Amino acid sequence: MRNLHGRLDLCSINTATLGHREPLSLTIDRIAKAGFGGIAPWRHEVESTDIAQIARQIKALGLTVTGYCRSAYLPAATRAQFTANVNANKAALRDAATLGARCFVMVVGGLPEGSRNLPAARAQVSDGIAQLLETARDWGVPLALEPLHPMYAADRAVLNTLAQALEICEAVDPECSGFLGVAIDAYHCWWDPELYASIEAAGRAGRMLAYHVCDWLRETRDLLLDRGMMGDGVIDLPGLRGSVERAGYEGLVEVEIFSKEHWWRRDPDEVLQVCAQRLQTVC
Amino acid sequence: MRNLHGRLDLCSINTATLGHREPLSLTIDRIAKAGFGGIAPWRHEVESTDIAQIARQIKALGLTVTGYCRSAYLPAATRAQFTANVNANKAALRDAATLGARCFVMVVGGLPEGSRNLPAARAQVSDGIAQLLETARDWGVPLALEPLHPMYAADRAVLNTLAQALEICEAVDPECSGFLGVAIDAYHCWWDPELYASIEAAGRAGRMLAYHVCDWLRETRDLLLDRGMMGDGVIDLPGLRGSVERAGYEGLVEVEIFSKEHWWRRDPDEVLQVCAQRLQTVC
Repeated sequence: MRNLHGRLDLCSINTATLGHREPLSLTIDRIAKAGFGGIAPWRHEVESTDIAQIARQIKALGLTVTGYCRSAYLPAATRAQFTANVNANKAALRDAATLGARCFVMVVGGLPEGSRNLPAARAQVSDGIAQLLETARDWGVPLALEPLHPMYAADRAVLNTLAQALEICEAVDPECSGFLGVAIDAYHCWWDPELYASIEAAGRAGRMLAYHVCDWLRETRDLLLDRGMMGDGVIDLPGLRGSVERAGYEGLVEVEIFSKEHWWRRDPDEVLQVCAQRLQTVC
Repeated sequence: MRNLHGRLDLCSINTATLGHREPLSLTIDRIAKAGFGGIAPWRHEVESTDIAQIARQIKALGLTVTGYCRSAYLPAATRAQFTANVNANKAALRDAATLGARCFVMVVGGLPEGSRNLPAARAQVSDGIAQLLETARDWGVPLALEPLHPMYAADRAVLNTLAQALEICEAVDPECSGFLGVAIDAYHCWWDPELYASIEAAGRAGRMLAYHVCDWLRETRDLLLDRGMMGDGVIDLPGLRGSVERAGYEGLVEVEIFSKEHWWRRDPDEVLQVCAQRLQTVC
């Protein structure tokens, strides 16, 4: 297991951690100045600015783009909408390539409005990913399926365990092309009784494309926006990173914290400082 | 699959559904008067009154006690506390027998305060259940392990999937004594990609002791107290009950809704009426 002390070059900041309160170019500068080696920006902030300029800025600062966030949701009530969703992701993959992203983060989407058919939504996800794989290869940007915590199964992602994500990878990309894998997020996966076995399987298949950290607060007050800073919750982060790295992960450790009432109210540089400190001591 | 139309005798009300706003004896009368065949009371309301009297009242009204809620949490920071937890459950099993409960509902507990060791907490759960099995047999009340939604892994239950519950059953009670099984709750399990396979396995082993329904609201606002009335959410309740019954479940269908801001504010008789209507039409 790598020692992160003095190795912020192995650490990345997902821009959501700072609450998207400032223009992306300013956020990029802050992250680089704080010494981090990577960044993971979001589409809405990239698409509202000059992407070529953003790409140049990131490159000039020597930052690795650990992931581009994130896919349009795939499941849809109509075939036309499904196709539109797939096409939106194809367009985003081009931007991910422009940014030099290590992967395109796939938050696959929940049940279509009004649907109770979870197997059908999951089938649409497999289908959509199969349709995106060639585009991913064309642009040279791997798709990283991110299983989300089961509490998001209705509205954000019908993909809820690492085992389930790996099953889709095997079905869609049995030859392990290098363009389909998983993003493992401690927050979403920590509770899973099969997690460590799934991590080993992901490693054996060479599918680990990203590793995200934050913490699960014992007294979580909001389903979406009350994630904790590493060390403030109950996740065994060193154990988890150890497992991921023993399984072969060599990428950066990315911090992604949604925290409306706490961290998003703090000064961005202070948040980055706390992230840096915690990454080097409790992750 | 059974047709529940006109069959409220096959349906049960967990008293939490009415918000525990009235004395238990009044709640029992309401549930019987509304035509339900079963009730599932909670320890705090039973233990604060004359249990023998409550048992007589339930029996006189012909209600089945579909479950006694619920176990003291098992995992503990010290051996002494763990033993105290096991003993608290032994005492509750005696009361479950007095009530003639079909099962004792085991919500196994989360991580001990300050702990990040999920495997250790899970091992304590297995250990505690093994220690309770003989008492359960002595009192003639089966233990029903209830896997809770993964969003409760930190503070309420480190048992989070049906497969995991069945694994403990197999380890602790390989001979399928009839005194260890599972409670399947639609709210906790609906998202699980392995759910239907696990239900079949539970049926093959004769382990299905209880089946609980409510609904998952797409816009869930609270992790604990915002469960939906059947039909108001996204769970495929007919599909799930069909699977449970095909696997051999012949017990009652129990409604358990925690809903602080909505159903717990409504008139209890009205809530029972809506439960009855939804059970017969959308479950």
